Amino acid sequence: MTLRRSLRRSLALVGLTAALFAPMVSAGPAFAACGSAEPRGTNDLGIVIERAAGRVKVVENTANATLATVDGLGDLSHASAVISRDGRYAFVFGRDGGLTKVDLLERCIENRVMQAGNSIGGAISEDGRLVAVANYEPGGVKVFDAGTLDLVADIPAIYGPDGARSKVVGLEDAPGNRFAFSLYDGGEIWLADLSDPKNPQVRKYPNIGKQPYDALVSPDGRFYIAGLFGEDGLAVLDLWDPDAGVKRVMDGYGRGEQPLPVFKMPHLEGWGFAGNLVFLPAIGRHEVLVVDSTTWTETARIPVAGQPVFVVARPDGRQVWVNFAVPDYDKLQVIDVPARKVTATLTPGKGVLHLEFTPRGERVWVSVRDTDRVKVYSTGTLAEVGEIAADKPSGIFFTARAGRIGF
Amino acid sequence: MTLRRSLRRSLALVGLTAALFAPMVSAGPAFAACGSAEPRGTNDLGIVIERAAGRVKVVENTANATLATVDGLGDLSHASAVISRDGRYAFVFGRDGGLTKVDLLERCIENRVMQAGNSIGGAISEDGRLVAVANYEPGGVKVFDAGTLDLVADIPAIYGPDGARSKVVGLEDAPGNRFAFSLYDGGEIWLADLSDPKNPQVRKYPNIGKQPYDALVSPDGRFYIAGLFGEDGLAVLDLWDPDAGVKRVMDGYGRGEQPLPVFKMPHLEGWGFAGNLVFLPAIGRHEVLVVDSTTWTETARIPVAGQPVFVVARPDGRQVWVNFAVPDYDKLQVIDVPARKVTATLTPGKGVLHLEFTPRGERVWVSVRDTDRVKVYSTGTLAEVGEIAADKPSGIFFTARAGRIGF
Repeated sequence: MTLRRSLRRSLALVGLTAALFAPMVSAGPAFAACGSAEPRGTNDLGIVIERAAGRVKVVENTANATLATVDGLGDLSHASAVISRDGRYAFVFGRDGGLTKVDLLERCIENRVMQAGNSIGGAISEDGRLVAVANYEPGGVKVFDAGTLDLVADIPAIYGPDGARSKVVGLEDAPGNRFAFSLYDGGEIWLADLSDPKNPQVRKYPNIGKQPYDALVSPDGRFYIAGLFGEDGLAVLDLWDPDAGVKRVMDGYGRGEQPLPVFKMPHLEGWGFAGNLVFLPAIGRHEVLVVDSTTWTETARIPVAGQPVFVVARPDGRQVWVNFAVPDYDKLQVIDVPARKVTATLTPGKGVLHLEFTPRGERVWVSVRDTDRVKVYSTGTLAEVGEIAADKPSGIFFTARAGRIGF
Repeated sequence: MTLRRSLRRSLALVGLTAALFAPMVSAGPAFAACGSAEPRGTNDLGIVIERAAGRVKVVENTANATLATVDGLGDLSHASAVISRDGRYAFVFGRDGGLTKVDLLERCIENRVMQAGNSIGGAISEDGRLVAVANYEPGGVKVFDAGTLDLVADIPAIYGPDGARSKVVGLEDAPGNRFAFSLYDGGEIWLADLSDPKNPQVRKYPNIGKQPYDALVSPDGRFYIAGLFGEDGLAVLDLWDPDAGVKRVMDGYGRGEQPLPVFKMPHLEGWGFAGNLVFLPAIGRHEVLVVDSTTWTETARIPVAGQPVFVVARPDGRQVWVNFAVPDYDKLQVIDVPARKVTATLTPGKGVLHLEFTPRGERVWVSVRDTDRVKVYSTGTLAEVGEIAADKPSGIFFTARAGRIGF
């Protein structure tokens, strides 16, 4: 137990608030004292973001239950989270630049810093020691000690002959305590090696395409793949062979020469890898593309109910689940991977924002914003098997992410 | 907290032993009372089997540290373990038929039953509710409630016209709360659906080959693959299409027509899946076979330092690590997957029995029996980065297994 936590707990016992002991860099609403907790396993825990209220629900996915609500996380629109190596803490990246460390056992805010003015997600290093955040304003990446939230490295995204500063997107962890990210304005991919956190080694790949807007790392940690907003195609960096540079693939992938209206850009992090196949959301079209990831060639198109947003493979790769942009945002579809077609359509309610599979994939949790519910389905029977009340729920993050690359 | 545990804890406080409260079916050494524990995350915990002493070390893989030693687990030669869904408990399968539930937080034996005379491993169901054990004597599978260790199903392995009873091997969990296992004497594979635990539905596949001796489930949960001791070849059941029956593949895989001496049969559970490739230990030969799992054809043979026992892929599939039977049991070799060749040879010491990667694969733990040490290596630099003292260590089981299929 740290001294600060020990102090906090003692004070909580006599009814004082721990807000007095918030670190100097903190801002936003004061947060409540951490209390005590019954020992329990953390491998079946997680959080659900309540985007409008600035809160998270601490949940467990064995009994499909809510354990607690933790308040005071600031602006959680488009918030995401990563999990500490031991499964105890969630690091929540708020849109307002807040980085909040939530203790899932004591069910409280362990620490919170305002680290930028506007941020868009983050990642945790392979060894669990570093949390990195991608910032729009000021554009760059800041890296924090996962234990203390002390700043350990600051990587401003300065590019080009004029030293302009770029928004940073698509920040992902990569094997070897590296982080990969993209410069939206600069059209570059950077690969930062944080093996020595005080002395990051940054390798820069310029001219990778116009306006990379999001990215992902393949589940095996090999490929960093950035989607482009300013032109068609994808930029791929082979992390096993960084000397080979960034390659352009899928030149037909994008909005096309005569773009359709796009109601919501698909999320790349949701891509469905199933063996050597990747299931991609078509942009603006009512289709999911099936791509052979060994050659990056399209092998099939599967018609779906709307413009896909998240296209996520069940952990065993047998099913791919898809949600949609407006006006089809009340639906979920299930693609059978061997059959390469939609085999079921569910209608959980309006505002299906996110979905997360349990670690082995037997159930899926679905955020339904407008009904203030997270619905839980069996992926075998497709029956609804549970429900959690949550205020405008969005992202769902289970602790099994701690043991996976690129989450 | 259960009533029994509550009682136990109260008694522990006043110095009584909890052995009085062991369930009626228990046997073997009495076990110590569970005490209290500081709350902590469980996603970085695990156990190391001390085979000769009948003990396990509770370990954590962030700081490469031992947290506790738990005694009284009986005969742990060839012991294995599975992890509860919440990461808190390890279920240890002893050779003597003992099934022991170890609490990794309170660092004690939560429960222990002698469930058979001679057993060879087990599995935990997808939903975490059921623990199944494969028994030699009496031959069959027993299924227990993971919470209470109460027997919920007994599946005797009776086969053939005479109603003979077979040893059971290669018990693995499969998606859909199913268990797959093989009848060594019967030459059959059985697939048991435990969706309704009181009423298991067993599908039997006879004549799959002579003496299946071990098996594994592919990481995607799709294929159940049994090795044959009595003839060459492998038996494969596609769990996504169980109506298609068991197929024979790799007819040249085995001891061959003019068998070499085999010092130790390879473990199948250790097969290295890396994308669509599988790295298999050749039997009796100083080779690792590279097989395309989409066609089950051999694509390469990699010369190695001895008869391979475990051939295990790092979680990202970039490396495959190999240990060996006597007389080469002091070595470990690292195969670079893209290059398809051995790129490093380590000599941890005599009796390299098992290896386990950390969840994201940045380190590997190696049991070195004859030096009473578990050595920890960085898989990036191959440097030794830690060491744990352990009495004749064998199997290492981290809690990340809870979220994975077929572990």
